[in-house]
Amino acid sequence: MSSDYQQRILDAVDSRFDEQLSFLTELVSHPSTRGNEQSAQRFMAEQLKERGYETDVWNIDVNDIASLPGFSPVIGDYDDAINVVGIFNSKSGRGKSLILNGHIDVVPTGPLDMWDTPPFKPAVNGDWMVGRGAGDMKGGVVANLFALDAIRDAGFQSAADVYFQSVVEEECTGNGALACIQRGYRADAALIPEPFDEQLIAAQVGVIWMQVRLRGIPVHVLEASSGVNAIEAAIPLIAALHKLEDRWNSADKHPAYKDVDHPLNLNIGRIEGGDWASSVPAWCCFDVRMAVYPGQDLSEARAELEACIHDAARDEDFLQRNPPEIVYHGFLAEGYSLAEDGRPKTREAVTALAGAHKAVTGETLVRSPVTATTDARFFGLYADTPALVYGPVAEAIHGFNERLNLESMRRVTKSIALFVADWCGLEKI
Amino acid sequence: MSSDYQQRILDAVDSRFDEQLSFLTELVSHPSTRGNEQSAQRFMAEQLKERGYETDVWNIDVNDIASLPGFSPVIGDYDDAINVVGIFNSKSGRGKSLILNGHIDVVPTGPLDMWDTPPFKPAVNGDWMVGRGAGDMKGGVVANLFALDAIRDAGFQSAADVYFQSVVEEECTGNGALACIQRGYRADAALIPEPFDEQLIAAQVGVIWMQVRLRGIPVHVLEASSGVNAIEAAIPLIAALHKLEDRWNSADKHPAYKDVDHPLNLNIGRIEGGDWASSVPAWCCFDVRMAVYPGQDLSEARAELEACIHDAARDEDFLQRNPPEIVYHGFLAEGYSLAEDGRPKTREAVTALAGAHKAVTGETLVRSPVTATTDARFFGLYADTPALVYGPVAEAIHGFNERLNLESMRRVTKSIALFVADWCGLEKI
Repeated sequence: MSSDYQQRILDAVDSRFDEQLSFLTELVSHPSTRGNEQSAQRFMAEQLKERGYETDVWNIDVNDIASLPGFSPVIGDYDDAINVVGIFNSKSGRGKSLILNGHIDVVPTGPLDMWDTPPFKPAVNGDWMVGRGAGDMKGGVVANLFALDAIRDAGFQSAADVYFQSVVEEECTGNGALACIQRGYRADAALIPEPFDEQLIAAQVGVIWMQVRLRGIPVHVLEASSGVNAIEAAIPLIAALHKLEDRWNSADKHPAYKDVDHPLNLNIGRIEGGDWASSVPAWCCFDVRMAVYPGQDLSEARAELEACIHDAARDEDFLQRNPPEIVYHGFLAEGYSLAEDGRPKTREAVTALAGAHKAVTGETLVRSPVTATTDARFFGLYADTPALVYGPVAEAIHGFNERLNLESMRRVTKSIALFVADWCGLEKI
Repeated sequence: MSSDYQQRILDAVDSRFDEQLSFLTELVSHPSTRGNEQSAQRFMAEQLKERGYETDVWNIDVNDIASLPGFSPVIGDYDDAINVVGIFNSKSGRGKSLILNGHIDVVPTGPLDMWDTPPFKPAVNGDWMVGRGAGDMKGGVVANLFALDAIRDAGFQSAADVYFQSVVEEECTGNGALACIQRGYRADAALIPEPFDEQLIAAQVGVIWMQVRLRGIPVHVLEASSGVNAIEAAIPLIAALHKLEDRWNSADKHPAYKDVDHPLNLNIGRIEGGDWASSVPAWCCFDVRMAVYPGQDLSEARAELEACIHDAARDEDFLQRNPPEIVYHGFLAEGYSLAEDGRPKTREAVTALAGAHKAVTGETLVRSPVTATTDARFFGLYADTPALVYGPVAEAIHGFNERLNLESMRRVTKSIALFVADWCGLEKI
């Protein structure tokens, strides 16, 4: 590929960038929180069809994936969980195939009055677009799509098959990406433009979600002493979990995280308990998110978390009589370390991405570990596919006034386009 | 009144007791939690009309009562808050008039699976009826009504005006009883058969409800350190409130509570915070119920509670940056001590009730303080009306499998009937 082709592709991204912004605005305006992704997915499927992709739209069936490695337990059925894949088949097939993956689901907004602008009315403010999901990760989804558009605008197409995946469930289980693997989608590499500062993710932690449920009949209903209050019974359990967090973080660090101050974060992300100010609460439940290192055994980690909770419960009157129930629904996600993946095709994919990044930004591609998980683990661990996580700059993802840097999305779109050109090769339309 | 009349009234209670049980079963089956009392109130109004009472059914208007002493703040309007009063006018008017008051609202059930039987399908189990509200206080409401029925069955009626009140909002503000006072209902005494073991309530505490709201933008969204987690920020505030509770309880006790171990109970009755296990929660709110002694100044108590919370907040990073908001909605209820009410008409009313109780049970009327509030305060403090709280035995009020002792309701019905006969006097129908 000559640099002339490169320039034509880069120019094509610029030419279409206003359209890309309009597309992103439309996509962010779909409030695709978990269970509500249908309209966003319909929009994606229409757009793919319009561009001539063969589209595969299907309902995830838990039965199809429940026995696969990497599956995370869910509560309720998946009647509303729809994946969309756009399939591009090259003529020559002489390049290396590629999965361009992104998730369409977004996390809840939290209280609306904490947003400066409504979270699903995307607002452009200088170089930023504010909106729930703008960063995490609709900007990346749109970058994937418009990177392919730019190649076509420049008069080319991929010389290998490309699968554009818009999946659900990334924010709670990853079962959307898993369903793509179960459905048979495979390629020589996968790219996921999660919003991590235009850096390549060298490693990601594993994540365990568990819900701790406390219930029991208070001994004296009118006597609100601390021993019988299910809300207050949660407090020593939370303290015990933090001690476990301290212990795990003070142990020898995983090599990919040696420069990270506190790699394994515990989060008490949700709590609910009691019904009435003047009734002693007899129930409380809270959601725990805990991270583990790549390579750390999930069942051992779970056993340690459970023991931590049950040990703490044995010290408390109320909990002794009413042992906590631990329910898993959501992430049982292993960590994944690209840095430790020494396969030649992985090194080759990283080199190609680094080249594209350098061509666009003039900078060396920085490789960093993250203290979060992504769908990359499915490709890397369970489908023998190098999974590159590389996406635009965003701020306050999962927070209020989440925002995406638009110039960063432009650069990432260009990098993806050049990466496709290099990895898949180009053929004339 | 000869004891022959007494016996005829007592027999009349027994004769109608099966009907009374059916009535109670019907009433408990109306799920009259706050905001949902309409069907129960309609039923009460119909039953009063059927019995020939003039009935007064009205929507409480906050504007009518907001400036009255004893008013408790509410959130939202009162479109759904309906009071029912059945008015009986005597022919002679030669006795002392009486308000028979009870509340129709019940507290929430909590998780249904913690009940042995559905809370709004009342189940009779030996001498008990199980159901939300059976004890607190539909058994009392029904006792009031059937006491009057028994007098009529015996061939008499009250020789003074009697106001049968079925009010809402007792469980959160008392604004239902306050609205009766605002509407002009007055009498020489009031009786409220709250379920306190056939004892006369000598004193009741005051109650303050407040909601503590924590909100703020976490500094590092992906870093779930304890300083930025709104749920965990609540924990030191709860601890500080317990210290205040300890301080208040270790101070000199109110004389009516000198034999009560721990008169002033703090209850953290409800908590809610966060939206997603993997998002650092930026909001949390919890409901506080705290008691005060009769005579304790409410605004001083509030100031002390607020200072307690704000002082504790100043020690915490997150809360320093995001001071807690304290919202009052619900009880701002003063305590009330019947024992300290030395007015002649109060002593006279107590004597009459003690006599009726003795005639029915053969026992001396026990006088006890309670660590809860009732609507009695409105009559006693703001309407110059002695307010007697005396009702049946119940268990697990505000808890699961709340139940009412049916033989106790029978005895209380008889005591109320004899009290009416004595206090109001009787006249031939």
